[in-house]
Amino acid sequence: MSQRRQIHLSCQQPTYVVSAVGAELILEIYECMPSDADSFDIHGSPEVHISIAYDGEIVSQSTGKEKWSLHKGVEVLVSMQISSKNIGDHMVKVSYYRGEEDSALDSAIVYLTSVVVSLDIDANRDGELNRQRVDKASWTWGPEGQGAVLLVNCDRDNASSSAMDGADRIVSGEEDLKDMSRMVLSIQSPTALFSNHKLLLHVSLSDADKLRLFYKFVAVSGSKFKHVLGEEKLYYEVEPASGDETHTFYVEGLKFPSANFSGLVYIGITLLDCSLEGVPGSPLFTDKVVFRVAPWIMTPNILDPVEVFVCRISINPTFLQQLTDLVTNARCRLTICEDIDNRGDRWIQDEMEFGYIEAPHKHFPVVLDSPAQRGLTGFPFKKLLGPDFGYATTHPELNLPVSSLDSFGNLEVSPPVTVNGKEYPLGRIIIGSSFPMLAGRRMIKNVTDFLYAQQVQAPIELFSDWLYVGHVDEFLTFVPAPGKKGFRLLLSSPTSCYQLFQEKQQQGYGDVSIFQGLNVIHRTISEILADDDMKKENIYTQRCIDWNRAILKEQLGLTEKDIIDIPALFTLDKQKYANALFPSLVNMIVLGKNLGIPKPYGPIINGRCCLEEKVSSLLEPLDLRCTFLDDFYSYHEFQGEVHCGTNVLRKPSSYKWWHMIP
Amino acid sequence: MSQRRQIHLSCQQPTYVVSAVGAELILEIYECMPSDADSFDIHGSPEVHISIAYDGEIVSQSTGKEKWSLHKGVEVLVSMQISSKNIGDHMVKVSYYRGEEDSALDSAIVYLTSVVVSLDIDANRDGELNRQRVDKASWTWGPEGQGAVLLVNCDRDNASSSAMDGADRIVSGEEDLKDMSRMVLSIQSPTALFSNHKLLLHVSLSDADKLRLFYKFVAVSGSKFKHVLGEEKLYYEVEPASGDETHTFYVEGLKFPSANFSGLVYIGITLLDCSLEGVPGSPLFTDKVVFRVAPWIMTPNILDPVEVFVCRISINPTFLQQLTDLVTNARCRLTICEDIDNRGDRWIQDEMEFGYIEAPHKHFPVVLDSPAQRGLTGFPFKKLLGPDFGYATTHPELNLPVSSLDSFGNLEVSPPVTVNGKEYPLGRIIIGSSFPMLAGRRMIKNVTDFLYAQQVQAPIELFSDWLYVGHVDEFLTFVPAPGKKGFRLLLSSPTSCYQLFQEKQQQGYGDVSIFQGLNVIHRTISEILADDDMKKENIYTQRCIDWNRAILKEQLGLTEKDIIDIPALFTLDKQKYANALFPSLVNMIVLGKNLGIPKPYGPIINGRCCLEEKVSSLLEPLDLRCTFLDDFYSYHEFQGEVHCGTNVLRKPSSYKWWHMIP
Repeated sequence: MSQRRQIHLSCQQPTYVVSAVGAELILEIYECMPSDADSFDIHGSPEVHISIAYDGEIVSQSTGKEKWSLHKGVEVLVSMQISSKNIGDHMVKVSYYRGEEDSALDSAIVYLTSVVVSLDIDANRDGELNRQRVDKASWTWGPEGQGAVLLVNCDRDNASSSAMDGADRIVSGEEDLKDMSRMVLSIQSPTALFSNHKLLLHVSLSDADKLRLFYKFVAVSGSKFKHVLGEEKLYYEVEPASGDETHTFYVEGLKFPSANFSGLVYIGITLLDCSLEGVPGSPLFTDKVVFRVAPWIMTPNILDPVEVFVCRISINPTFLQQLTDLVTNARCRLTICEDIDNRGDRWIQDEMEFGYIEAPHKHFPVVLDSPAQRGLTGFPFKKLLGPDFGYATTHPELNLPVSSLDSFGNLEVSPPVTVNGKEYPLGRIIIGSSFPMLAGRRMIKNVTDFLYAQQVQAPIELFSDWLYVGHVDEFLTFVPAPGKKGFRLLLSSPTSCYQLFQEKQQQGYGDVSIFQGLNVIHRTISEILADDDMKKENIYTQRCIDWNRAILKEQLGLTEKDIIDIPALFTLDKQKYANALFPSLVNMIVLGKNLGIPKPYGPIINGRCCLEEKVSSLLEPLDLRCTFLDDFYSYHEFQGEVHCGTNVLRKPSSYKWWHMIP
Repeated sequence: MSQRRQIHLSCQQPTYVVSAVGAELILEIYECMPSDADSFDIHGSPEVHISIAYDGEIVSQSTGKEKWSLHKGVEVLVSMQISSKNIGDHMVKVSYYRGEEDSALDSAIVYLTSVVVSLDIDANRDGELNRQRVDKASWTWGPEGQGAVLLVNCDRDNASSSAMDGADRIVSGEEDLKDMSRMVLSIQSPTALFSNHKLLLHVSLSDADKLRLFYKFVAVSGSKFKHVLGEEKLYYEVEPASGDETHTFYVEGLKFPSANFSGLVYIGITLLDCSLEGVPGSPLFTDKVVFRVAPWIMTPNILDPVEVFVCRISINPTFLQQLTDLVTNARCRLTICEDIDNRGDRWIQDEMEFGYIEAPHKHFPVVLDSPAQRGLTGFPFKKLLGPDFGYATTHPELNLPVSSLDSFGNLEVSPPVTVNGKEYPLGRIIIGSSFPMLAGRRMIKNVTDFLYAQQVQAPIELFSDWLYVGHVDEFLTFVPAPGKKGFRLLLSSPTSCYQLFQEKQQQGYGDVSIFQGLNVIHRTISEILADDDMKKENIYTQRCIDWNRAILKEQLGLTEKDIIDIPALFTLDKQKYANALFPSLVNMIVLGKNLGIPKPYGPIINGRCCLEEKVSSLLEPLDLRCTFLDDFYSYHEFQGEVHCGTNVLRKPSSYKWWHMIP
């Protein structure tokens, strides 16, 4: 509470005041002034700082020697810079005078007790508590910003627990504690003060479900922790012992920022005067601190991979072997989700999105569970949640009316970009939606609200509802690349495929067919080029992609040089939704410079697939290594590809999210 | 859609493109270039504007005579400034060259059709439609800001309707129309275009419940209106006739800004290319406009009164007569709410709050119905809702768990203030709440969320839960005053009352009692001063008021000179809640310079009540006229006073809310 407190004076008896060190008090010099007084002087004990103010602005320090005119407008401000040893050991005296008379008409005495009651947190974000006098109740973004950070305690350090650490009301151990933010209450006060004053820690009703505070105390068996604030506990009475002491608390976040929650939570401590028997205690002053709950942050393709996830199903042994080789080359871990955990669901990209949360003192990965309820639905919670591996969901209630667009193949993130001078150092989230007028499928509000509320990766909504599955990963991806931007956007391009096939036809390869070696209908280049329906359908799908290309260029600040067109062809089904004709090359897994690209089964010319040759010729100059993985029977025929069937845990960005300005 | 659309070229056959006048198209010059070409030139028909760009920045206008190097990075942008008379009547031709050869290797031709499809609204807020090319899709605050405004159509112009105009899907007449915002669609296009193109107006799913769009068309009987967009209608196909025409629409708002609704709503129009049979139409371009739904705005005491409302109950004839005289002097209307409408509920201040909504083309008062469900509960809807008198509620669902703090005696607004340089030209809303740690009564979230969401009168929360009734109007009010600020804050002051009584005791009037002439226990000044319990209780209540004083000074930028202390005494009940001992002087009705103040029944000294004398001496120098209204038996004994028993409709502020920066 930075407000100046008003102190009523009396000439009849001394006034006793308790105040915080550094806080300004306004002495109400007019209330008790003798009616014939026209000036006053004021002096105090050495520790008392006395200022004279007009209109709320300090104009002078009082030396105790001047007389001041008693006209409305002069205010006297008093503050103390050190804490009291004894009750009332500081003093000020206001004396009232008439005209030039030397002797005072009357005077009012105030005995002051100054105390330190201060909450200390890591407001400067260096991982340590700060005792500097910063405004701990304000939180600002940017490299010069300040304000402490809270993690949602969504990992499971307690092996015996069945849920996240934040779901229980205990500190399960040292590891659990490390996920929390420390807060220390410092008290310097005469011990006697607390015989008729109380100290209350408090949270507002609206913040109480967003944090939990543990009090650390010493028991015979060592340090213990007691849940004292948060949830139904709105206040906690601190019991000072000596009056010169500190109390340590640990705070855990319980909720991520959301549509109804900015992420900021406040904790206050108030000194209550309970010296008057029979009436309620009245607040003397409050110290307040703010935390921002760390947002959930996604990791773009250009960040180093740590671990690749894939499902084992009956028909993908070849694919698994090829992927294993790729992952080995890329030097990261491979985790195969077995049948018992995937229950026949191969689409591990759709089930979850990896991200992380970070505070100055700690960071760990957090998997966001998609609202999709398929075979893999229990996997993130059962198999990933663990020590320093968090779990988050936007849909505590089950059985939401979800569509295919709610699967997380439809949730991607761009590399860092700068758009018209505005920086997105953690990139921008990309989700697919329906074009407004089509009133079609779109992500449910639970998910989009959650994504927008994280603030640090401002989402872009694309038009993906033209596709049968409807995921953005069906027509775009990002790959690392040399240069200032550090990446290229790869976009599916029917036009580019037609050009390639026309070239090949002109070179005399019109009779070469796609899908050689596969037990599906083979079509020659010339047949494809002569197919008017297919031509029309691909003019349409190219227009849909172009619409998104324009949005991406504008919203990511891209030029044509940042975009690479990757050959693709689509066919429309009866409902006029698009599906990839041959495996969609952009639906790849990106592991550093190693790309695992769906094997397209294009026309074999001079012993090499011309689609593979084309995409390699586009990507290899960027120092990328193209490996083509055969996903035809195992994924492609089920409307998905490599990217849909894998998931990658990546290292967090080295950029601290609190340094950005959303 | 301000994105640049990409146009694919072909050397085999001409490309046909439809574009908006003024929109930039990117010609994809590389896709069809002969492999041995190294430069190109481009020229077009006179109406076509051709630019050369590098990295998305325009660097040169093309005259058609230069040759440009074909290296990745050069982009060609094309736009047209006038609309086409016929399909494809504009043209550009790109020719490709090798080395110094004069004759082109090949060339690609594009036939362009340019059309105007534009939504016009009152984006510059002058009450008229604007055809200027402003960014109609962005809304900015401030005197230099731009963006159109929508009113919630919450009055009832249709006498035969039982609800607000926005509750039905019709335009009931000219008056109903005046409450809506006009939007005109301009089309300039070759008529033939619409044989295979469609125009769709659309709103997003999330905006669809916040507005309703009516289409004006001419029928035999005159103009008619058809509901075409909003609610379940997400899009509407406009059917152009000649191709050179305008279509008029009227938009009404359906919802006030709220916790989940910023107030901004968007309407788009998209030209769909349906020229390819058998595939869905694809979007060519979109024009988008934004409206902000006007906030509900409260009227501070310093605005001129228009009409006073009061209830007739069996025991208030004297009060009614005194109030009638006051209202007559203040030259405003008086409306007495009879028994049949008030059903024994006299607290008309608590039932509702008057405010208004304003757009550049229209404004009208809007009553906000409180969640309180007492005798008057039906009054605002049944008796006030009418032509150009709107009705709003924050609680469409009934039977919310409300407390006394949800009554609107606990909802006030300050006059305009400036706080540390930040201007609040419409004042700040003031609501009473519990002190955080007390976990006590507070306004329900429905109401506070609504108040915060209006944005233009940023609320301040005070601590009023120390009072039995718990309303801010029990201890504060604002009165007009000369000077730059234009007002004073009046605060109840037990200290000031004790001083006054001590003075009177010293002057020999200790034996004079309060409540003379009333059939209640009389207490003398000396008895009151000697009552230690009362003294203690009033130290406590003074501290509660001082706590609020500090908040008010900080949040309204006030100095002591802006505050007047008004004598008051409180007693605590068994639950330690405070009640006014004698009628609370600040609980007054303010009608311009005429104040209707509760008659305090203080000690009569020299023939005059010393409390009346004191308050008159404080307020009359401000050119205010004090009239004391006897509310003792009719209101005071039921824990309320004049302000609680009245309500005032005031003129709206002359300040336009969109000129402020929240």
